[in-house]
Parts: sequence; C-alpha cells; structure tokens
Amino acid sequence: MAGSYFSDLLSTIAERGRSLLGLDTPADAARQASGLVGLCEQLLSGRGEASGVALAREVLDRFATLDAVARLGFFTALAERFGPDRERLDRAVTAWREHHDERRAADLHFGSEPRRQELLRRLNRAPGGTAALVAMREALLADARGNPALQEIDRDFLHLLASWFNRGFLVLERIDWSSPALVLEKIIRYEAVHEIHDWDDLRRRIDPVDRRCYAFFHPALVAEPLIFVEVALTTAIPVAIQPLLAADRDPVAPQAARTAVFYSISNCQQGLAGVSFGNFLIKQVAEELRRELPKLETFVTLSPVPGLMRWLHEVVQPALGADDRALLAALDEPRWIEDAELAQRIRRLVEPRTAQYFLESRDDKGRALDPVARFHLGNGARLERINWLGDQSAKALAQSAGVMVNYLYDLAEIERNHEAYANQGDVVAAAQVRKLLRAVPRKKTGAQPA
Amino acid sequence: MAGSYFSDLLSTIAERGRSLLGLDTPADAARQASGLVGLCEQLLSGRGEASGVALAREVLDRFATLDAVARLGFFTALAERFGPDRERLDRAVTAWREHHDERRAADLHFGSEPRRQELLRRLNRAPGGTAALVAMREALLADARGNPALQEIDRDFLHLLASWFNRGFLVLERIDWSSPALVLEKIIRYEAVHEIHDWDDLRRRIDPVDRRCYAFFHPALVAEPLIFVEVALTTAIPVAIQPLLAADRDPVAPQAARTAVFYSISNCQQGLAGVSFGNFLIKQVAEELRRELPKLETFVTLSPVPGLMRWLHEVVQPALGADDRALLAALDEPRWIEDAELAQRIRRLVEPRTAQYFLESRDDKGRALDPVARFHLGNGARLERINWLGDQSAKALAQSAGVMVNYLYDLAEIERNHEAYANQGDVVAAAQVRKLLRAVPRKKTGAQPA
Amino acid sequence: MAGSYFSDLLSTIAERGRSLLGLDTPADAARQASGLVGLCEQLLSGRGEASGVALAREVLDRFATLDAVARLGFFTALAERFGPDRERLDRAVTAWREHHDERRAADLHFGSEPRRQELLRRLNRAPGGTAALVAMREALLADARGNPALQEIDRDFLHLLASWFNRGFLVLERIDWSSPALVLEKIIRYEAVHEIHDWDDLRRRIDPVDRRCYAFFHPALVAEPLIFVEVALTTAIPVAIQPLLAADRDPVAPQAARTAVFYSISNCQQGLAGVSFGNFLIKQVAEELRRELPKLETFVTLSPVPGLMRWLHEVVQPALGADDRALLAALDEPRWIEDAELAQRIRRLVEPRTAQYFLESRDDKGRALDPVARFHLGNGARLERINWLGDQSAKALAQSAGVMVNYLYDLAEIERNHEAYANQGDVVAAAQVRKLLRAVPRKKTGAQPA
Amino acid sequence: MAGSYFSDLLSTIAERGRSLLGLDTPADAARQASGLVGLCEQLLSGRGEASGVALAREVLDRFATLDAVARLGFFTALAERFGPDRERLDRAVTAWREHHDERRAADLHFGSEPRRQELLRRLNRAPGGTAALVAMREALLADARGNPALQEIDRDFLHLLASWFNRGFLVLERIDWSSPALVLEKIIRYEAVHEIHDWDDLRRRIDPVDRRCYAFFHPALVAEPLIFVEVALTTAIPVAIQPLLAADRDPVAPQAARTAVFYSISNCQQGLAGVSFGNFLIKQVAEELRRELPKLETFVTLSPVPGLMRWLHEVVQPALGADDRALLAALDEPRWIEDAELAQRIRRLVEPRTAQYFLESRDDKGRALDPVARFHLGNGARLERINWLGDQSAKALAQSAGVMVNYLYDLAEIERNHEAYANQGDVVAAAQVRKLLRAVPRKKTGAQPA
Repeated sequence: MAGSYFSDLLSTIAERGRSLLGLDTPADAARQASGLVGLCEQLLSGRGEASGVALAREVLDRFATLDAVARLGFFTALAERFGPDRERLDRAVTAWREHHDERRAADLHFGSEPRRQELLRRLNRAPGGTAALVAMREALLADARGNPALQEIDRDFLHLLASWFNRGFLVLERIDWSSPALVLEKIIRYEAVHEIHDWDDLRRRIDPVDRRCYAFFHPALVAEPLIFVEVALTTAIPVAIQPLLAADRDPVAPQAARTAVFYSISNCQQGLAGVSFGNFLIKQVAEELRRELPKLETFVTLSPVPGLMRWLHEVVQPALGADDRALLAALDEPRWIEDAELAQRIRRLVEPRTAQYFLESRDDKGRALDPVARFHLGNGARLERINWLGDQSAKALAQSAGVMVNYLYDLAEIERNHEAYANQGDVVAAAQVRKLLRAVPRKKTGAQPA
Repeated sequence: MAGSYFSDLLSTIAERGRSLLGLDTPADAARQASGLVGLCEQLLSGRGEASGVALAREVLDRFATLDAVARLGFFTALAERFGPDRERLDRAVTAWREHHDERRAADLHFGSEPRRQELLRRLNRAPGGTAALVAMREALLADARGNPALQEIDRDFLHLLASWFNRGFLVLERIDWSSPALVLEKIIRYEAVHEIHDWDDLRRRIDPVDRRCYAFFHPALVAEPLIFVEVALTTAIPVAIQPLLAADRDPVAPQAARTAVFYSISNCQQGLAGVSFGNFLIKQVAEELRRELPKLETFVTLSPVPGLMRWLHEVVQPALGADDRALLAALDEPRWIEDAELAQRIRRLVEPRTAQYFLESRDDKGRALDPVARFHLGNGARLERINWLGDQSAKALAQSAGVMVNYLYDLAEIERNHEAYANQGDVVAAAQVRKLLRAVPRKKTGAQPA
Repeated sequence: MAGSYFSDLLSTIAERGRSLLGLDTPADAARQASGLVGLCEQLLSGRGEASGVALAREVLDRFATLDAVARLGFFTALAERFGPDRERLDRAVTAWREHHDERRAADLHFGSEPRRQELLRRLNRAPGGTAALVAMREALLADARGNPALQEIDRDFLHLLASWFNRGFLVLERIDWSSPALVLEKIIRYEAVHEIHDWDDLRRRIDPVDRRCYAFFHPALVAEPLIFVEVALTTAIPVAIQPLLAADRDPVAPQAARTAVFYSISNCQQGLAGVSFGNFLIKQVAEELRRELPKLETFVTLSPVPGLMRWLHEVVQPALGADDRALLAALDEPRWIEDAELAQRIRRLVEPRTAQYFLESRDDKGRALDPVARFHLGNGARLERINWLGDQSAKALAQSAGVMVNYLYDLAEIERNHEAYANQGDVVAAAQVRKLLRAVPRKKTGAQPA
Repeated sequence: MAGSYFSDLLSTIAERGRSLLGLDTPADAARQASGLVGLCEQLLSGRGEASGVALAREVLDRFATLDAVARLGFFTALAERFGPDRERLDRAVTAWREHHDERRAADLHFGSEPRRQELLRRLNRAPGGTAALVAMREALLADARGNPALQEIDRDFLHLLASWFNRGFLVLERIDWSSPALVLEKIIRYEAVHEIHDWDDLRRRIDPVDRRCYAFFHPALVAEPLIFVEVALTTAIPVAIQPLLAADRDPVAPQAARTAVFYSISNCQQGLAGVSFGNFLIKQVAEELRRELPKLETFVTLSPVPGLMRWLHEVVQPALGADDRALLAALDEPRWIEDAELAQRIRRLVEPRTAQYFLESRDDKGRALDPVARFHLGNGARLERINWLGDQSAKALAQSAGVMVNYLYDLAEIERNHEAYANQGDVVAAAQVRKLLRAVPRKKTGAQPA
C-alpha cells in the first residue's frame, strides 16, 4: 500500500516535470531513439535539477518503447558517446606521468570514469529507476552477445549494480503461504531447479511445517525477490529428491528435525547476472534456522550435477573399452532404470567416475568442472555424498544419469574448506566419496581425464 | 520490530564468524589500530567469503574503539596503503598510451580505483555497516581539516556514499505525533534553524492540523532521518517567524490554507556532508502537499539571511558616512528594536542594502554570497520578499539585523530561474525586491560592493 | 508475523496452565465428552482465574475432538444444564411481581441469563477462542436442524456473536493480488455466486485495473474474511455476467469508469449465519470507491434471481393455458436458448412474469419472494432492470431461465426506498421494470399469484 | 496510517448519512439534548439501516456537546425511557409462570433486556463508536455517584463493555522507545503509582535494557492503552523503589537477570472501571518474559500499601498505650525518618502491625483490607516480604509509613493460593512475614483488630 502510494506520487512528480519540459507522449519509437541520446545529454548537463527526476523518467519510459533496432542504436551511442571525457582524461594522464602521487592517481580514476556511469546514477533517481535499469541491463546482456563494444559498457552497469545491491542493502524475508500472491507467482516463475507446476505444488514447497523458503529483497525492487532458497527440514541427510517433494509425504515435526536441506537455489533477476548473492543467502538462512530451531545440527544441500553426462561422454568415453562404451550408450535410453540388472552395471561404471569428476577433474583455471560444485565449494562447503539415482526425472537422467550430491555446510569448517579449494584447488570431500575413487580402473583406462 | 530482529540476527552471524576467526574482544585500542590494517587486508584478499561479513563487522567494531591518535593512524594507512594497485595502474596507463580505445579507457578507470573503495564496499556488507561508514566519514571529515592526504581519501567516501544515497533509494516519510519517539528525539536534536526546546515544543511543530514535517530516510539507516523539512500551512505568505511558531496561535483549517511555508530545513547526518538531498525533498514535499490539499497555490520559504551582517560590516560599512556608520554600530546593541525611531532609521539604511546583497553581490565563482540564497536560487526558487524584522531572536538580530526573506517555488518557473542563475548568475526576484534597490545611494557611496 | 507470534504465546500460556491442572492429552473422545461438562462447570465456578485461560483452551481443544454422538451430548448438556440459575430467577420474578421498577426489571434480565452465556464469554478468553466458538456454532447449527432444544441454545450463541461482530469492530480491507495467498485461497473457496475455478481465474477477478474486491475482517479472526464483494468498474450498467467475466476482455481505465457493479457478494462463515454484514459492506465500499474515483456515478448490482423458476412452476404454471404450459416445460431443456424463435416466445411469456414476481408477489410476512431481492430491497436499493439471458450458465438457466437483474444503490434514495419496502412492502422499481407488467395477461390467467 | 485512513473514511460515510437525514450542526446544546432522545428512538426503530451508522455518529457527536445539565437529562431519559419493553416483558413473565421451560426462561431473559442495550450496540456501529461509548460511561460514572437510577443504567454499560473487552479481543504490545509518541504521552499521563515527570523520566522507564513495559490494547481503541505494567529486570527481589528508579543506576544485563519486578500497574480508562485486565496482563507478561529470557526465575511485585496508615490510626491506635500513641503521632511529621533512633522505635511498633494488617484483618466480606493486596491475593500471588522504608516519598510516608511489600507470582502455586484466599480468606505469606506477627503484643493490647 505505502509502496504503491509512494510510486504513484513519484510518477506524478515525473509527470509534472515532463509537462514542464514540453515532452509529449511517445509516438514514433525509432525517431525518438535518436532523441533519447539528446535527452541523456540534457540529463547529464544538468538542465536544472528541477526537471532531473522527470527527465530521468522520460528517458526510461522512452527506452522501454524502443524496438530492437532502436535499442541497439541506443546502446551503441552509450558505448561511443558516453565514454570518459577525453580532454579531462588526457590532462589526468599527463599529470600522472609527471607526479605519481595519490591525488593524481585519484584524478586519473575519477577523470577516466565513463560519462555513462553518472548517466546511470541520474537515471536511478527516477521513480522505479532501479527496476528500469535492471531491465535495461537484461536487454543489454542479450544484445551484447558477440558484441565487444556493448560488453564494454556492461562493465559500467555491472559495477554500479554490484555496488547498489551490496549485501548490506539486502533484506532477508521468509516466503510462506501468508506472503503476497504477487511475490509467490514469482517464486513459481523463477524456480530453476525443480519446477513448481502450479499453486498447489507451490503450497507443498512453502506451507508444510517442515518447509522453509527465504529470499533476499532490495528495498528499491518492490515485490521482486533477487534470489531464493527452498529448505526441507528432515531427520537425516536425504538421498533423493522425489521423496522430499512427494505430495503425500508426512511432514516432520520441526522440533524433531536435525537437518536442514537446501534443495533448490534460484537466481531471479537476469539483469543482475554476475552480482553474487547465493553465498550470503545460504549462510544467513543457516543462522536464522539455527536460531529458530536450536536442535538443527546439519546444514546440507541436495544438489544436481548438471555437467556429469557431458563429461562422461566427452572425457571418459573415449578411453573406455567396448563394454563400458555400450553401457554408457545405454544411458541415452531413459528406461534403463527399469532394468535392475542393467542399472546395477551402469552404477558400477558411473559412480566411481562421478567421484573422479568432482575430485580430480579441473577446468583450465583449476576450478571444479561442475558449475554447481564450483558455487558450493567456493562457499566452503564439503562434498558429502554421491546419491545414485537421487533424481529420476528425465532432465536429471539426461544431465547426470540421475546422480545427485550433498554439499555439507559446516560453519566451523567452511573457511578452511574455502581456502583449500581457492588456493590449492583441493576439493574437500567425505571419506565415503573419496573411497569411491578406488573403483576407478586406473590401469585399464590409462587415462587421467582433464 | 522486524528491523531490530534483523539486525540482531546479523549480529549473531557476525559474532559466530568472529569466533571462527579466533578474534578476541578489543583490549588495547592502540595496538589493535595497527592490527586493523591487517584485518582490512584480509578482508580485501578475501580470506573466505565465509568470514567476510564477520571480518567486516570486526573491523568496524574495532574502529569504533580507537582513540584519536590510533584513528588518525588508521586513516593515514587508508591514504597510503589502500590507493590503487600501482602495477595494474601502470599497465593500464601504458596500454592506454598505445591504444586510445574505449576498452583501454575503461581499464584505466577500473585499474586506477583506489583499493579502499572495494574495502568500503566490503565493510558495508556487515550488519549496520552503512551506519558505521557514515560515522567513520564523520570522524574523517573532522580529522581531514587541514590534512590534504585525508581529504584525498574523502573523495572515495563521498563518491560511494553519494552513489548509495542516490535519490532513487530514499524514502519520504511524514513525521508526526504518531512517529516513534526514537525518530522524534532526532528531530529535536537535528533541528538547525529554529531550535526545538522540548517535547511540547516539538509537538507544536508537528501535531497541529496546519503543520507538516517530512523527512528522507534510507532503508539501511533505520530510524535515522537524513534531512527534514518543517512546513506551516497558512492563508498568505508569512512575514515573520515568531507568530508562526507562537504557542497560543489558532491553527488554520487545512482546507482553508492556500500557502505552504517551508520554514526550516535541516540536514541530519554530518557523515553525509556533500551529498545533496534538499532540492529533491522540497520538490517532492510540494507535490505531496498538492496531492493532499489541491487548493494550495503557493509554495514558499521563510528563510534566514545568515551572511547579511557580516557583509554589511565588511563590505558596506567602509563606504558609509559617519551617520550611517553610527547607525550600523547601533545594531550591535540588540535593544535597538525597542526604540521605534531608531529602528526606522536603521531600516531605511539596511533594507535597500539587503536587496543589494542578494541582487548584486557575488562571490568569486559568481554565486550569491548568502549560503541559504545559494541553495534556494540553485534550486530554481525566486527571491520573493524581504521581511524587515522577520525574526526578532537574538541570533537573527546578530546575523541579519532580524531580516528574513521568502523564496518562492513556482514549479512552472523553477527551471527557467535555475538556468538564469546557473548560467548568467542572475537572481530572479519579485518586483517588490528589485524596487528596494532604488533606495541604494549609489552616488553618495560611490561604491558597488563586491 | 505478529499475529502468529501472539497466538504462539497464548498457546504457551494455555499449555502451562493445562499442565498445572494435571490435564493430560485427549485419549477417549467419548469418555472425555462427559468430562467436558465438568470442565465447563469448573470454568464457570472460577477455579482460579489462574487457570481460566488454560481451562478455556482445554474445553475448546477437547470439543474439537468429539465425535458426532459425543458432540450432540455436549450440546444437549449445554441446553439442559447451563440454562439460568433457577433459584436466582425465581427470586427475581417474585421481586418483580412485588415492585415493577427498573432495578427489579434489570434483576430479572440479568437473573434470567442462561449460564452458558457466561460460559461462552469465558471460553472466548482462550487463544483462538473466538474462531473456536464460531466453529462450534457451525456444528451446532448442523445439529440443531429439527432439534428445538438446540435451537434454543443457538439464541445465546447468536446473541453473543452478533454483539462481538458488531459493525464497529469490523475492518474493511481491499483484497488484491498483493494480498496473502492464505486469504486469497479463501476467496476462491468461499465465492458463492460465480465460481472461481483456479488461481488464474481469481487473478482475473481481483488484479485488473477495473476490478475491486473488498472484505470485512474481525481482528480476532486472523486471515479469515467474513464477507466479501467483487466489483467491476464499467462505463454503463451491464446486462449480462459472461462478458463481465470473460478472460479476454479489455479492461476499462478506472478514470473512464462511471459505474461500479457489485456482481458477487459472499458470506464466508457459516458459524456467523444470522449476523448481517452485507448492507454495511455495500455502503462502505460504495463510499470508498467514490473517494478513490470521484467520477463514479452509478452503484449497481448484477444479481441472480434464484427463486424465479420455482415460482413460475408452482404459482404461475397452474393458471397457464396449454400453449404456455408447453413453453414453460420447454425450459427444462437447456438447449432452448439455441432456438431463437423458441427463445423469443419464451421471453414473451417469462419476462412480464418476472416483473410480476418482483413487484406483486409476497411471502406471508409481506416480503419479496426472492431471497436476493429481499436483501437488496431491505437495504434500500431499487430494482433497476431485468436482463433477459443475463446469465447463460446451466445453473442460472435452471434457477431463473437465465434472467438476471440490476439493483441500483442511489444513496440519496436508499432510505426512502427502504421505508417504502419495510413499512408498506412496496418494491421501488424503475419505469422500465414496471412497464413490463403491462404484458401480464391479467384476464386470461385470472390469477394474481401470492 | 491505515487506522487513520479508515476512520477518515467512516467519518465521510457518517457525514453523508447526516446530510441525508437533514441534520444540521449543533447549535443549542440544551435544546438538542431533548432532540437526542428522539434520535435514539429513531436509531432503535431502525429508520433504515441506510442511515444507521450516520444516525449513530450523530447521536454520539451531539452527546459530546451537551453541558452538564443536558447530559444528566439525557442519562435520566436513558434510565426512564429505555428500560425493557414492558408489554413484552409482561407476556414473558406470564408465559414463564405457566411453563417453567428453557424456551420461556430464554424469552424472559431476552424479553427483559433494557432497550438501551440495543441502543448501545447500535451506537457502537459508528466510526469511533467504541471510544465514544467508553467516554460516555466515564461521564455516567461521575454523574451516577449518589444517583441510584443512573447506577442502574451503568449495569448495562458495564455488561456490554465487559463483553466487548473480553480478554480474547485484547492485544498485548510492548511499549518502548520506538513506540509512537501518541502512545507514550498516555503512559506519562496514566501512570498512577510512581509518577513519570517528563519524557526523560519516561525514557528511563522504558528504554534501558533492563526495563520492560507492556500494555493491553483493544483493536477498536486506536493508540489507547487499557492497562500497562512496568517491569524491572533485576538480580534479586528489590527492597525499595527509589534505587530501582534512580537516574544514575547501572542497568543489569538482561541475560544476568533472574527476577522480573512488576513495580507499577496502571489502569488507563476510567470508562472501563470494573472490567478487569490486571490479572491477565501480569500472567501473560510473565510468560512473555520467560520466553524471551529463560533464565528468569522469580516474578514478583514491589507494591505500595495504600491502606496501612488509615488502619493504624482507626483500628490499632485506640488500643495502644500512651507511648505507642505518641510514636504513631510522630509519623505525621515526615522528618521522623531522619531521626535514626526514633525511626527504629517506630519500626518496632509498625512492622509487626503491618504483618497483622495483611494476615489477620479482613473487611466485612472476608477480604483483605488493602486494595492492592486484594488484587494480587485474588490473582493467586503470595505475600513475600514487608520492606521497611521501601518508599521514602512523601506520599508513601503518609499512606504507609514508607512500607512497601513484595507479592510473589509462582505459577505453580497461584491456583492453590487463589483458592485458599477465595474460599477461606487465607492469605498465603512467606515465613519471614508470618514471623513478624510474633512481635504483635497480643496480651498488652488485648485487641484483635477487625
């Protein structure tokens, strides 16, 4: 209510300012696109703070009406015409070369700031400005693929958004069945790991006594979660996702729960790609849960392994013998799980390799190959367990032969784990995971993948 | 409630993190000051996101315990050891000299960023971090007087705070008798123009039906107004402050009011000096009042003239004849206002000069001499009227011989006014003000002050 | 949040009290039913305010576990054992017969109060007590059908609930897409006029700019609407429901709307049957809408006519000629509306009779026959228009041959209309409705139904 | 905000209704007083629900303007003209005499209800109705002193208010420095035990970490506490009030506190006299504190003894010897406490008698003589300790020779204590209190007071 009132008010201010400026309503988007650059120059030149907020709103409104061509034109202008003030930059470079002192270093820094940074800051003053800039960046990221000039201006967007969405400005909120429908529909929409099919399905995720959902919000993005995590309270570390999400399961009494399972984490805003929230979210939620339920002992994920099959095919398969190749090929037919004997043979092949995938394979920067692993290991989690057939959905069978894993967050260990991983690339794993490695037929394959 | 709960929670997280770090409670502030720099380096080197929030809180807590010497030492280290990464900077400068393209310009910009900017961003992640940084800057500004090295690092503080306190992140709230005492006591404390003596006095300012008070808040500074304005609803433009604040006056029915008088604007946070809020506040409050009371026609201030007496003494007096000098000297004795005949003679001397003070005198940057005038004229207001004996308080008699003025905010004119003032230094004033100039004895003095 | 916290707290208090009382958890519902009466006696005898809240909660908890037989036993005990204190009553009657003064009249009133009234008041002290009593009455109403003794005790329930749910204690709230899912699911469940099929359907009812939904809440029934009304903003008075609810319609800009259509009003709490909210709701919502949208001129319903077909069959049909009887019989086959010629003939028969149904037919208390008509006419509305085929749903065809009507709420007329109806049984109707009467073949039928 | 908006809205509705009724603004209060009765009759006769809310508001507004004479006239009319419907009552009495069944008993009850009860219920429907009725009863209580007819109608007020302010409808809220000034000023005003002198004093009561204040609110009385209690967290049971309230004391860390001291309980609404809240408040606050601070072990009061001196003078003094009489007389001179030797002799006289005052003296209903004792003993508290010179204020010296006492709330004992007191009039007291009795010179005085 208050929020809506406030934004109404700001709109009125902008409306008034717009009429002061003699701006009429958008008609020909393409023609206006060129006019947009002129408005941006006005905004920067400060044609009066008086109309600043209105000008900013006008720029954002017009941007929203641009077609694809005009939008690209606008971004290109941002790249070409709103870089640093070259004269000022040259003066600063010259001065720096004469005196390497702190003041001239700072002059260099502030003097080389692209003018679009100040432009973005002024646009942000408009009512709804922050949301509009996040949307603008989403469009920019799409346009910037394969366009280095636009990638350049994204550095400015990312720099400012990362500063504005600093963790100190975020607010953690619990999402439950008393949350506004407006927010809940976004949970349905943004869930990226285990699809939420409808409102009944949503309710099963957030309403039972043994379920929790938390999201980070930013005060300037009303009713828009930035990232959220879904948590199941359980008695023990779960080995599979389907029982966890079953419609007919019996809920666990929260006081009886000893384990909190983070089974889904989803980023919501494509326009904030590259601004990292997940690590902060997991740790704060763990603390919140511990406060509410002091008997919780274990904080763990139940996570997918999205890169496993690809790695098996690309890296492992070439070194396999014919029998094993055939087994691997059998995975392409999802009904292999119905054949118990076949499934057992596949398991004997794949499970040890999964351990190897996590423990020994690295990309060229020395990081874990699996993107989900990179996230949790980077946070200081430990690879706790590999769960054969943890997810029997078609998607999971295709991605990871149905394998899921648990990452364990032990607050007393996360810093040590993080440093081992960050400095030496060591993946800290439980003994039961490391033990699986023994079954990797080193001699037979003669290969040490990646 | 929620706020308090939230900050409790964050404290708990930080507390836990602290114990993970093996940090003990502060004992010897001076010794720790040196340790503080080490903690800052840890925070920057990212000894694990795991402990990032806790480390940040630790730095801020320790900073708060430093004595003056240790604090200066810390600021000096910020200046000397947290400038840009010189190697990276040199590479960027070299690259720029070879290729003047946008990418290298950007590399130069990001490569020359002082490391303390990232340090401040990471400190901001801590619970209560923003408030702590605003307090840190308040201390810095005090220490930086006459210390150019510290002024240098203030550029980074100001840059980040201005970005974080962007108008788009501010929330306007009405302050009234149902506001929390926690906030109201700050209104009493921060009121800078017409002192609020006690809670009864405060109530007279915010509770009657013809009074309004609005403040900007930032979501990260709970219960801390950034700036506030006090407004009186009246039937006509007021000529004096005492009747407006009288304890026994009859309130005006809001529906009968035609004028909104901004009679006091106070900035609250010394640590945000240089971040400008007033212009936005006045204009948004004007819009809000217009929405609530569509019959309001006039938005005007009743403002002090803090620089008048000094200018009279320093600039005008030397050129005066003996009689006028004596009159000016009589102003030093506050009881002159009780002598009607004397007061009338003084008025004939001072009133025209006041018009001259506003309309003709400028500082070396071409700006109005009076600081309050600079603010309102810069916002696009018009000098509407000079009010002889508008404020009979001892402070006002000393500052301005009791003169007050009205600045008029006419939304249809503010942009034109602003540009006239910003571009040509023209002060737009009502005819009744300009007419006073005629009585300035140009020939007699032969002087055109300033 | 606060609510939940509060009720948690109260539960804790009750829990503690319960253990003080040595009460164990329910085991054998039937045996406990008899024990329940004993607990009620304890509660009334005041075995210590100390345990009052706990005792009350215990009674309510045990009641909730009773099976049908035990529940009936409990209600019977309420009827037989918790009537007035006979001794006190006799004294009061005797005293009254001796002195007919105000004091003895009052003694008679308070002395004849059934003890169950005080019992209900004490039960209400428990956390969640009000909700539990509303549920208890719902069960009572079911059991009381055909059971005069139980109907007797319902007088006490209704008396207290009507007093507690006095309009002065109700809170009007707007329901929209930012309302909690917890509340919204109840809107879906309780909608009694035009079914809401799912969440998408719900959204179409409350989210578009030209739709409004308001409900009354009581502070003691958290997240439980008592009654709600759905409103469509339109340019003109609508003649049919299906276009109003169409999924693909274009919304009307609120500023362009001139008419507010109350097209669905639903009571939510069966346990509050007989406590009247609808009249207050309609009038307050009309005022709220007028405040928000001053251009609204017309407040009107689009209402079903649930009793029409039955009346046609029972009252009109016997007096019809063979042809008309055949036409009436044709209504039993819903596909008559697809035969334009038949439909036209049916219309000529039914439409005038519909006017007659409203304008001339009365029940034995002189009230309109139609229950929906009774409600709106009693509120002072005017019968504005009869809409042939206003609702083509199977239900409406069966109930009213698809006829809908508009009742108009003209605030300047409602009191006059109300009195005409209440005192003389006159139904105030628009000329276009009265005109239809002319086509009723008075001579032919020779009948003036009911 | 919401509340204010809501009441604005209701006022608008009432305003409109009023104009529909052709009611003009009050002019001659006396003449209108008679008109008021007519309006009440209209309201009861139901001249249309349409205008019901407006009529109710009109009655309440006019009542508020009555002068003392007119008000008394109005109350008298309430007594004489709004009793039960005599005809209906007679029929019910006759029917009852013929058949002593439950239905006729109920007819008797409902048929003897004074018409003013329904009048009050209808008045309550108006916006602000509940607050107006509470104020009306406050006026009634003042007028009813010595006027039995008015005392009669107060039974109806009290009956309805007790039902509407049922504990199940109350909301407990903590009062602290973030509470609205609007509420806080009422805490200052209503504090009845240890005066709060100003806002600084208030802050010392509610803001330190070892202080708590809780109040009950009713949803229909916005910003109006009904009763509040001030609590000090301490390490041990306190013996005196001045150290507890000292401006310069060091606060106790809440985690170190073992005792919660209820040192002041104040009822706020004179119009709710006779509706009991204190018992519920103390017990709920005790539970809330126990939840927040599980280490709290002791819940105790520090209470005045308002009736002691009067009892000493009226009951004890006549039986004293000359020396003791002189000592008792010395108490009239407050400076006796400065004379250590005198004070010691007085103590030897008064302290044992204080124990006797509590343990042995009873009023004619068998209750403790002291009103504060009656309240806490009735709640089930135990008399824990007598504190000589616990309060050295002039008021306390005059009332109780400076004696204070502690009542202990032991949740495991309160029910037993309550029953002992309620059934046998036994005051449960700690051994240290009972021991004081030994020093009462039974033989010498030969008197067993009261």
